[in-house]
Amino acid sequence: MEVLFTFIPKEHQQKHLIEQFPEVHFHFAYKDKMRLPSADILVTYGEDLAAADIESAEKLKWIMVASAGIEKMPHAAIAERGIIVSNVKGIHKTPMTESVLAHLLALKRSLPFIYEKQREKQWNRKTGSRELYGSTALILGPGAIGSEIGRLLQAFGVHTIGCNRSGKQAEHMEKMVRFDQILDTLPEADAVISVLPSTNETKHLLKKEHFQAMKKDAIFMNFGRGDLFEDEVLVEAMENGEIGAAVLDVFNTEPLPPEHPFWDMGNVVISPHASSHSGKYVERALEVFIPNLRKWLDEESEPTNLVSLEKGY
Amino acid sequence: MEVLFTFIPKEHQQKHLIEQFPEVHFHFAYKDKMRLPSADILVTYGEDLAAADIESAEKLKWIMVASAGIEKMPHAAIAERGIIVSNVKGIHKTPMTESVLAHLLALKRSLPFIYEKQREKQWNRKTGSRELYGSTALILGPGAIGSEIGRLLQAFGVHTIGCNRSGKQAEHMEKMVRFDQILDTLPEADAVISVLPSTNETKHLLKKEHFQAMKKDAIFMNFGRGDLFEDEVLVEAMENGEIGAAVLDVFNTEPLPPEHPFWDMGNVVISPHASSHSGKYVERALEVFIPNLRKWLDEESEPTNLVSLEKGY
Repeated sequence: MEVLFTFIPKEHQQKHLIEQFPEVHFHFAYKDKMRLPSADILVTYGEDLAAADIESAEKLKWIMVASAGIEKMPHAAIAERGIIVSNVKGIHKTPMTESVLAHLLALKRSLPFIYEKQREKQWNRKTGSRELYGSTALILGPGAIGSEIGRLLQAFGVHTIGCNRSGKQAEHMEKMVRFDQILDTLPEADAVISVLPSTNETKHLLKKEHFQAMKKDAIFMNFGRGDLFEDEVLVEAMENGEIGAAVLDVFNTEPLPPEHPFWDMGNVVISPHASSHSGKYVERALEVFIPNLRKWLDEESEPTNLVSLEKGY
Repeated sequence: MEVLFTFIPKEHQQKHLIEQFPEVHFHFAYKDKMRLPSADILVTYGEDLAAADIESAEKLKWIMVASAGIEKMPHAAIAERGIIVSNVKGIHKTPMTESVLAHLLALKRSLPFIYEKQREKQWNRKTGSRELYGSTALILGPGAIGSEIGRLLQAFGVHTIGCNRSGKQAEHMEKMVRFDQILDTLPEADAVISVLPSTNETKHLLKKEHFQAMKKDAIFMNFGRGDLFEDEVLVEAMENGEIGAAVLDVFNTEPLPPEHPFWDMGNVVISPHASSHSGKYVERALEVFIPNLRKWLDEESEPTNLVSLEKGY
């Protein structure tokens, strides 16, 4: 039994794996792709696999993706071989939610202004700070992460509206709407927060008219995937002052090219796809992987967090 | 009956007061101090009264301070006359708590780094972000505001330790310690947050050894009063790398002089005593004042939120 990691856990984490599973050969290296043909299980961030790799990984039965997004995986090649794919959906919850709250509170409490005035050594109390309390947030995609965002927003006294395909109730949402009701719901929202995955249905879901329907001082946050809208649509909305601010963690092109107009927009915050970063990332991924591997070995049972390649999440 | 405001509420708020209390003469101007001799009640931010003003305000019976701090009031002159003082303690709770959480999350999630890299148009994912979750906060002064900070920190999965004079249990604190136990408790805390008022006991409460006892990456936040420590003590602690970062909303000298070393310290954030700012400030002060004035007029009963000039809060 061979398990191939395409990223390198810390030494004590490697040691822990080896001790826990003496029957398994672990390889913590991938670059040369030499180990692919003999790997039974692959642990990857999900951005380093091509169809040809799947082909050469003849014995591969399970791909564990230590990330949430699987849109960069060679879906057809994996599906054809019947390889199981699982991810670590839950582990992004904490750091991502903290990043969303950090950015939202920072804008409400005028932190960019406060930092700027400090650089200028200016004591300027006209911060224009507002409160998060009593505002309304529309959360696009209230799954594991979106619901956690909803839980904390509610603790701050925010009214939460969830939005998914079916309008089915999600946790920590005061009310739910369907994708086809977004346009009618946007005028209520002080913050519009997307954590939607990239699927056929969410691609370019937000169009010109959606930004026009938002409040003039709405804060729009995209922490899901960059293809939720076309860049030009948001550039135009910001230039026309249709919304108050945008915080973007994901982009159609990553890294965001240096010449992109977003960089220079005073009311756009660019977070370099870093909202899930955390010193605890690999630690948590292993907390998901280890019990799954144990069950896989002992009972030949499928891992938790199975991903459907058709649905895309 | 005359009520003198030393600040100017919005027009609709003035109108509302006049309509609610046809029997009262309201004056919304102070600068020339002409109205002082005839005022029965004074509504002030608490920073514009001298002992001579109290003397000339011959009829004054009640000072309503639309703020929490009363240390700039002429205590002796007020006490001598037996004038009642009340404040609006509760109304700072929401904006201040949001500011504290905003600054704390911003540092944990590397917002200053993210903003800086955006200014440089650099896509740099090495943000070094950490999580608030699972950390420990020591809250100095868990009263109305401190407990609200505790409530929200707990929602983020933070362990809360409260610290007051007596060690008496306060809300949303996992455990409590007394002032004389601070030094022993500091090594546990990832964040040290003060919302203490200025009193004889809190003045210069934190000394050199306190900062030395903190974790090397501790975040120290002073949102209470500037005289909690002498500036030199913190300057030295920051220069020696004894703690990770400081966020200061209050200072020994306000405005902070342009030549002060704090301005240039990369790990010190200067918030210009603005953490309680909110578009809802006067609105909320009036929500406290109006029912108190009604009861004062109808039942001659004392207002809520009475302040003890001896204790200082």
